[in-house]
Amino acid sequence: MSINSFGHLFRFTTWGESHGPAIGAVVDGCPPGIALGEADIQPWLDKRRPGTSRFTTQRREPDQVRILSGVFEGRTTGTPISLMIENVDQRSKDYSEVAKAYRPGHADYAYDAKYGLRDHRGGGRSSARETASRVAAGAVARAVIPQVRIRGWVEAIGGDAIDYAAFDDAAIDANPFFCPDAAAAARWEALVDGARKAGSSLGAVVACEATGVPAGWGAPLYAKLDAELAHACMGINAVKGVEIGDGFAAAALTGEANADAMRPGADGPDFLANHAGGITGGIATGQPIRLRVAFKPTSSILIPVPTIDRSGAAAEIATKGRHDPCVGIRGVPVVEAMMALVLADQALLHRGQTGR
Amino acid sequence: MSINSFGHLFRFTTWGESHGPAIGAVVDGCPPGIALGEADIQPWLDKRRPGTSRFTTQRREPDQVRILSGVFEGRTTGTPISLMIENVDQRSKDYSEVAKAYRPGHADYAYDAKYGLRDHRGGGRSSARETASRVAAGAVARAVIPQVRIRGWVEAIGGDAIDYAAFDDAAIDANPFFCPDAAAAARWEALVDGARKAGSSLGAVVACEATGVPAGWGAPLYAKLDAELAHACMGINAVKGVEIGDGFAAAALTGEANADAMRPGADGPDFLANHAGGITGGIATGQPIRLRVAFKPTSSILIPVPTIDRSGAAAEIATKGRHDPCVGIRGVPVVEAMMALVLADQALLHRGQTGR
Amino acid sequence: MSINSFGHLFRFTTWGESHGPAIGAVVDGCPPGIALGEADIQPWLDKRRPGTSRFTTQRREPDQVRILSGVFEGRTTGTPISLMIENVDQRSKDYSEVAKAYRPGHADYAYDAKYGLRDHRGGGRSSARETASRVAAGAVARAVIPQVRIRGWVEAIGGDAIDYAAFDDAAIDANPFFCPDAAAAARWEALVDGARKAGSSLGAVVACEATGVPAGWGAPLYAKLDAELAHACMGINAVKGVEIGDGFAAAALTGEANADAMRPGADGPDFLANHAGGITGGIATGQPIRLRVAFKPTSSILIPVPTIDRSGAAAEIATKGRHDPCVGIRGVPVVEAMMALVLADQALLHRGQTGR
Amino acid sequence: MSINSFGHLFRFTTWGESHGPAIGAVVDGCPPGIALGEADIQPWLDKRRPGTSRFTTQRREPDQVRILSGVFEGRTTGTPISLMIENVDQRSKDYSEVAKAYRPGHADYAYDAKYGLRDHRGGGRSSARETASRVAAGAVARAVIPQVRIRGWVEAIGGDAIDYAAFDDAAIDANPFFCPDAAAAARWEALVDGARKAGSSLGAVVACEATGVPAGWGAPLYAKLDAELAHACMGINAVKGVEIGDGFAAAALTGEANADAMRPGADGPDFLANHAGGITGGIATGQPIRLRVAFKPTSSILIPVPTIDRSGAAAEIATKGRHDPCVGIRGVPVVEAMMALVLADQALLHRGQTGR
Repeated sequence: MSINSFGHLFRFTTWGESHGPAIGAVVDGCPPGIALGEADIQPWLDKRRPGTSRFTTQRREPDQVRILSGVFEGRTTGTPISLMIENVDQRSKDYSEVAKAYRPGHADYAYDAKYGLRDHRGGGRSSARETASRVAAGAVARAVIPQVRIRGWVEAIGGDAIDYAAFDDAAIDANPFFCPDAAAAARWEALVDGARKAGSSLGAVVACEATGVPAGWGAPLYAKLDAELAHACMGINAVKGVEIGDGFAAAALTGEANADAMRPGADGPDFLANHAGGITGGIATGQPIRLRVAFKPTSSILIPVPTIDRSGAAAEIATKGRHDPCVGIRGVPVVEAMMALVLADQALLHRGQTGR
Repeated sequence: MSINSFGHLFRFTTWGESHGPAIGAVVDGCPPGIALGEADIQPWLDKRRPGTSRFTTQRREPDQVRILSGVFEGRTTGTPISLMIENVDQRSKDYSEVAKAYRPGHADYAYDAKYGLRDHRGGGRSSARETASRVAAGAVARAVIPQVRIRGWVEAIGGDAIDYAAFDDAAIDANPFFCPDAAAAARWEALVDGARKAGSSLGAVVACEATGVPAGWGAPLYAKLDAELAHACMGINAVKGVEIGDGFAAAALTGEANADAMRPGADGPDFLANHAGGITGGIATGQPIRLRVAFKPTSSILIPVPTIDRSGAAAEIATKGRHDPCVGIRGVPVVEAMMALVLADQALLHRGQTGR
Repeated sequence: MSINSFGHLFRFTTWGESHGPAIGAVVDGCPPGIALGEADIQPWLDKRRPGTSRFTTQRREPDQVRILSGVFEGRTTGTPISLMIENVDQRSKDYSEVAKAYRPGHADYAYDAKYGLRDHRGGGRSSARETASRVAAGAVARAVIPQVRIRGWVEAIGGDAIDYAAFDDAAIDANPFFCPDAAAAARWEALVDGARKAGSSLGAVVACEATGVPAGWGAPLYAKLDAELAHACMGINAVKGVEIGDGFAAAALTGEANADAMRPGADGPDFLANHAGGITGGIATGQPIRLRVAFKPTSSILIPVPTIDRSGAAAEIATKGRHDPCVGIRGVPVVEAMMALVLADQALLHRGQTGR
Repeated sequence: MSINSFGHLFRFTTWGESHGPAIGAVVDGCPPGIALGEADIQPWLDKRRPGTSRFTTQRREPDQVRILSGVFEGRTTGTPISLMIENVDQRSKDYSEVAKAYRPGHADYAYDAKYGLRDHRGGGRSSARETASRVAAGAVARAVIPQVRIRGWVEAIGGDAIDYAAFDDAAIDANPFFCPDAAAAARWEALVDGARKAGSSLGAVVACEATGVPAGWGAPLYAKLDAELAHACMGINAVKGVEIGDGFAAAALTGEANADAMRPGADGPDFLANHAGGITGGIATGQPIRLRVAFKPTSSILIPVPTIDRSGAAAEIATKGRHDPCVGIRGVPVVEAMMALVLADQALLHRGQTGR
């Protein structure tokens, strides 16, 4: 059962609410003997951490991870790795309105419809804060598949896209937007500042690539690599679309235009294109795995929106609290983490079934 | 483990290859006491059946389903429902070239990389023929959630989209493209005929909607309704993109433009928009569930493409066999089936956890 | 979810009722490239087949297995292996009384309580006939772990136990009881004949041993090898007790008497005893895995027993039909199969997590 | 995947080592709206807590549980419930010998064989300390099924059994052995004292009964209630045998002697016996569920035993540390917890599939 767990052999379970004492993840099935310490996890959390620029929420969380189990004398033991991050900067009183009325587009109404009650403080379990647990677990996954490099970036904010001709890997970490195009990053400053000041928010598109994935990973038919990645990414807060390779653009192509022709290469085939995003039949081809993820704009905005309250009466809501003006930005390390988690799991599944 | 199974409580497992003696599905966890016979399943298989027009593969399969277990005196007993469909029109000799060289874009190379061997006849397990099993299982799922209506259609072929202003539900079943816009259907005749005659193929976009889904279905966080739907649809052969609600378009919006404002309604909230596609926080809101799925063009084409053979030497391949010029068309009943399977599963999960 | 499936990486799902058209199993996760044909499976089914002596049910079933998928040119392909066995000798009219009244000790009442209806013909899904599917799946499991030898026998019938001093492996297949002690086999002829003629039935204890299991297989904590074996065996029809190694006898020992002391051996430790049945901490030690399984006497007997009917009124039932006077006898190949299925699964799990 | 998780719909995952900073469990799938606080969990932990008498280990652990998530304003929210218990009384230096040589019967050798390394301090993950997490999770399970009463006791220590004619429910909590027979409890004082002083240990048999389980819970065929209970109990440290109802004794009976005859009762059938332990066909009959569990004697004893060290050389080991002279005693709350966890899970599964 996977209500709060993800993965088959390399599997993690997360727990925790935005304003509870802590959040965390239990990573199960990790191979033994892997060097792992908190210092291997912290940098990825720092990348996702809020409050590092004015373009993210101003909640101040150090997001210090603790490893509570599964590591002995610096190495994984094959037993569950419990990761905990304390919440230190809750301001639950900001959410008194959210307790009463539903934010349109947010999970408030749906949680009440499902459970009959909810922890409204900071969005409770539905808060993007939960993604810190994913990033921590993802760091463990990276250690399991060191041969794989996973790299994400923001491709567009509010409909303003980067120019791929200007793609500069070094730029990604040099601006607060994970933007590989310095000119776009400059434009986005104004764009996101404008939204923030207007009490509005913006959507974004995140792209991510994994290189070094060997041909053969993936488990057809109902754990296809593309299906697992879609599952993983569509489950991130605010995500509403996922594409593998050319995605929707492939639907407008002919078969010959979409074919990733092959010629003999030094080590396996040399592919002349990668429309398929490195996956055919649900199995990796050895090419880079490529995906794109659509984040909707944050639902918590200061601009008032018509809604109803818990009694069903008409209301209007303007969300105070502290929120990301563009939740897609901090989505980059989360998408990377989910990709790492899927690939580590598929690596073990593949080894289990085939011995390779 | 879900290598060839899907679902949590309402779960199905498929088996079978394109040119083996039969294919089938085992549906497990079905509630007892539901009226079910082969006549409830056959119409959905007929909708997907090949050979019904010149726009699909010319393989002639009656696709007669047999129920081998789990039904007694016309009612489900709560035990596994075994569904079998015999393969009757295999022509394996057409595939002798596929045995030797890899079709670019197809699963051939990846299967060999993974397993070291493959059943090349008709694509073996990676053939779209497997989706007949999904459609059969999906028909059982529909019987589990009779209050839900699921309806799919083709929205675009080869980049030529319908006009939603001309949407006519009655048209969908009146043309060989599941096209709700009669004018578009007329254009597609020429378009698909052209591709077929040229030995090419075309991609397509399929849309699907489920109405009657009660607020509350869905299981955050790692079985979110949108994530499960993305998993289900991205696992269909040739699918490379999935959107829930506005999908990628939402990434270009502001928070206020994307908000699905609410006002008091007769029975729960009255939503003023449905950008979210009926799902927030992974849980159904009671609105229609809406998704879009991108099918790439069929990889098996007559136009020769450079490739390599099993020894790694350069080759060229033109796929004979019989193939759909636009596999997205017959994707409609498959997307519908996957949606039904996800929703039936979530209905039981929700009832299990909450008693409602 | 495991309602009708068992296993993690090497997983099987069974379907079918006693008097339906067929029964079967889908084996998922099998490694590719393993030589497998119907001739590898049939001998194990023949061992379990009814009607081979007067000490088992007189239902005449050839139990011919067909492989419908997952094998190509004599080798497994890594895709699901569908196994089907047709039912040919149903006599459903014998069960008209069972439709009306509940056999004490049988599943009749409980199935009605759970599902509100049941396929009463031959016990439907609760019939021991389902174990043929397990035996077929178990034969595939044996092919996955050829280094392991699994051997079961009957240790006692109706409280009359074998003398382990007279244990003769060659005797096991030389009598209709899978009895390793020729003198006991001779006594059991009279014992079982007596029960059969009296319309009664007898319980039995089955023992099983697996040799060649490498140290390290097993997955603590919640897939411990002993827990998985207990699960597998307690799920066989009529089983009510499972012991690993000394089992209940260990509960009467002191720590020093129960210690399996070690000394240096040629290849790993040389154990001086095997009280633990080859498993400590849920992990194989490399010693023989030993277990014992208690089968209750068949509930379907000719001797009348007080019961109630479906309306709740008092009744008396004498089960006609055709039944095993001692269901534990044919339990031997089933216990062996379940042991093979658990061990093949653990082999793949271990390889997946550790690479060994 | 269930390596460190258990359950289907009501599912828990444990983490933590004996001498790490803490241990814990994440309980997933709990229904919403259930009153739950630390005070509902603590009494069960106190029952299992070490150091409460001279007949258990002298390790002093307060075993204070903290709820870190999933509860809001005193009620469960339907989200994961994270439970944490800090370890406060580790004395890792006592275990320096265990780091070097393998305790026969303990998991030491098997863990090294599996993982290539292990946290030897206090047995690491294989320590019975992990069962505190189970007891905490079990307390949540009890809250899910308040209609069920689960009651365990020790039936025998070192082969000395209670007299069921003297069974006194009130006695169970009135002595340090959970013994329902005051005379036996008196004998056991001397017995266990003797073993403790001799540096030896003793095995035990624990019995447990659940009343109030409605007919219909249980999920045939591969999640049969008896199989799930066997799995749950055989996975407890030191357990080597499980019986449901009459267990092995049933194997010596005839069908008529083992039949649980029925007559009309006020509310469903009135059973004249309960040989089956309340389960037929894997489904509850509405009678009390009864099981017996065999605990082997603690492997960690002061009496020296021949063994090998990590280099494979001959050695002798006498385990210092602090250990239970009879681990079966504190097994009572653990068996109870596992029974509660299985039953809560089956309750939700049953409701999910059948709506009842």
